[in-house]
Amino acid sequence: MSDTHALRRQRVLHRLRQTAPEAAALVVTSLSNVRYLTGFTGSNAVLLLGPDDVLLGTDARYEVQVGEQCPELPTVLDRCTLAAVCSRWAGQGPLGLESAHLSVADMRSLESAGLGPLVETADVVEGVRIVKDAHELAAIEEACRVSDAALGAILGSIRVGVSEREIARALESQMFAHGADEISFATIVAGGPHSAKPHHEPTDRPLAPGDLLLIDFGAAVRGYHADETRTFVIGAAADWQIEIHGIVAEAQAAGRRAAVAGADLRSVDAAAREIIDDAGYADFFGHGLGHGVGLDIHEAPFFSVRATGMLPADSPVTIEPGIYLPGRGGVRIEDTIWVGEGPSRPLTTSHRDLVALG
Amino acid sequence: MSDTHALRRQRVLHRLRQTAPEAAALVVTSLSNVRYLTGFTGSNAVLLLGPDDVLLGTDARYEVQVGEQCPELPTVLDRCTLAAVCSRWAGQGPLGLESAHLSVADMRSLESAGLGPLVETADVVEGVRIVKDAHELAAIEEACRVSDAALGAILGSIRVGVSEREIARALESQMFAHGADEISFATIVAGGPHSAKPHHEPTDRPLAPGDLLLIDFGAAVRGYHADETRTFVIGAAADWQIEIHGIVAEAQAAGRRAAVAGADLRSVDAAAREIIDDAGYADFFGHGLGHGVGLDIHEAPFFSVRATGMLPADSPVTIEPGIYLPGRGGVRIEDTIWVGEGPSRPLTTSHRDLVALG
Repeated sequence: MSDTHALRRQRVLHRLRQTAPEAAALVVTSLSNVRYLTGFTGSNAVLLLGPDDVLLGTDARYEVQVGEQCPELPTVLDRCTLAAVCSRWAGQGPLGLESAHLSVADMRSLESAGLGPLVETADVVEGVRIVKDAHELAAIEEACRVSDAALGAILGSIRVGVSEREIARALESQMFAHGADEISFATIVAGGPHSAKPHHEPTDRPLAPGDLLLIDFGAAVRGYHADETRTFVIGAAADWQIEIHGIVAEAQAAGRRAAVAGADLRSVDAAAREIIDDAGYADFFGHGLGHGVGLDIHEAPFFSVRATGMLPADSPVTIEPGIYLPGRGGVRIEDTIWVGEGPSRPLTTSHRDLVALG
Repeated sequence: MSDTHALRRQRVLHRLRQTAPEAAALVVTSLSNVRYLTGFTGSNAVLLLGPDDVLLGTDARYEVQVGEQCPELPTVLDRCTLAAVCSRWAGQGPLGLESAHLSVADMRSLESAGLGPLVETADVVEGVRIVKDAHELAAIEEACRVSDAALGAILGSIRVGVSEREIARALESQMFAHGADEISFATIVAGGPHSAKPHHEPTDRPLAPGDLLLIDFGAAVRGYHADETRTFVIGAAADWQIEIHGIVAEAQAAGRRAAVAGADLRSVDAAAREIIDDAGYADFFGHGLGHGVGLDIHEAPFFSVRATGMLPADSPVTIEPGIYLPGRGGVRIEDTIWVGEGPSRPLTTSHRDLVALG
């Protein structure tokens, strides 16, 4: 992997020259970006990247780990990591910073230590990360496989009386049992009226007959995330539940069809949204259609009514429309899909029908 | 709780007038700070706090939740949450920002939208949060009780051949079973030479006879964290293991004794560190002695060789010295303790001896 990381660093330097030519080097403070460029997974990390320089900073807690994960990289161990790394560069030219990942306070501390001049850059590493390589695709595919398998393993245990928390814990336990390194994000399990909250936190509420049950979850493997949502019904489905599930399923399929390399991001959102709008539920789908996944659970590109730009090839994204009716319940169907050549390919593949459980 | 939140907001406004009198209002962008001041737990939140104004911003995903959690607060739902909240304030006077919690990019976006003048503030909310109220103490005590109980529940299953991952998963499962809402941080389980890494990530390595086993873990209850570390030995302990465990235990007890209200933060660190230094292990304790815990797992105050300031009363902190011998193994003993009147009181109370397992 160290060749892979070196290649990624070269790509980032190339993009730095293109997008912020006034910066002679870049100080990387996003932990995901540092991991992408070095493989280091510690919770404190700063990377300096210049044409002929690379320096990875962390603190003494990670002394052994950084040597194991990045044996080829020069490192500095210092509790004041950002200052220690930047002081090694001082005087060699303007230093680019990641404006989305550096706090105002940290920028001021660099300024007052004279560690400038500073150049504010945007999306230098993210612009490279948006297109995934084979290592990344393999990890995301594995994370999606684990997620599907874990969901399949718990469906038989979902019945009236089981709580949202119990379902969340069982699903997380199965993700680990099937090979997850981590849980991608706080698992959402929302029963009955709770499913009208797109980001509901699981409670002790027991499932009741006629509930919609929305489960949004994902496994992480080697740092890469899966993101998947399915909505079920407990017992027989009411007409309104069948109706909104059908509309969301149709919108989701339309979104997946529209998500091809070269597509305008806003048009992908629109392809799904207009089906929900035309069915009269425009006011009940308040979030964007989806987002990229990778080392971050939410990363570029983003599909929304305000998005600009184009969907690149070799990019994993989610397609996740929903309809949420306050006080009654909601439906969301979400897949992580792979945008390559030709039609997009779902990486999460659990059944998307309105399955009746319990 | 809404009275509690209103009282906290009044305290923050008072502190804002004291520490940044030029700011007429404060825009709070730290999610922990927003939760502290409103009770809102969504993953996107911005709070505007002025002498006669309060406005909570989030996006449509949290429409129902914000109404349930903060029925008394005026809210705005907008995908561009920061801009939407600040634009309601525009023109009413200088707006304080949290310099440690706002990115350079977000500050620039406010500037270019003319939503200033901006005043960079530091630790306004944190300065209030450092002293905990009875609600907070109760939650932290509960999180510590859950953590102790979970550790006790898995000790019988730890034996030669069990992997670090298996122990981590079992411990997390027991934390949930005993009442955790969340896991406080990625559980550290480090066997044998891995225990020389203070922040080791669990692997499939099976425990072997003679291993040290370091477990650093904690439960979260109602958003509040526990933080605890114990080090065990698998089978009979070697002399060097007994030696370093004894030194760390002595240092940890000294740290707990020194951690009283009014103590100088650096002197608390020194009380433990000098025992390790005097025993000849100064080079093998590379991190600070401890930190505050609350809505964040690491928050003020911090004990270290460079710390300044005083330990307040009614503050929960960790005391966690360690000795780490690369290639051989390490020991850390950590408690979350309560600093009140008189001697500090451990909130985590599992046995601190070098217990032999398996």
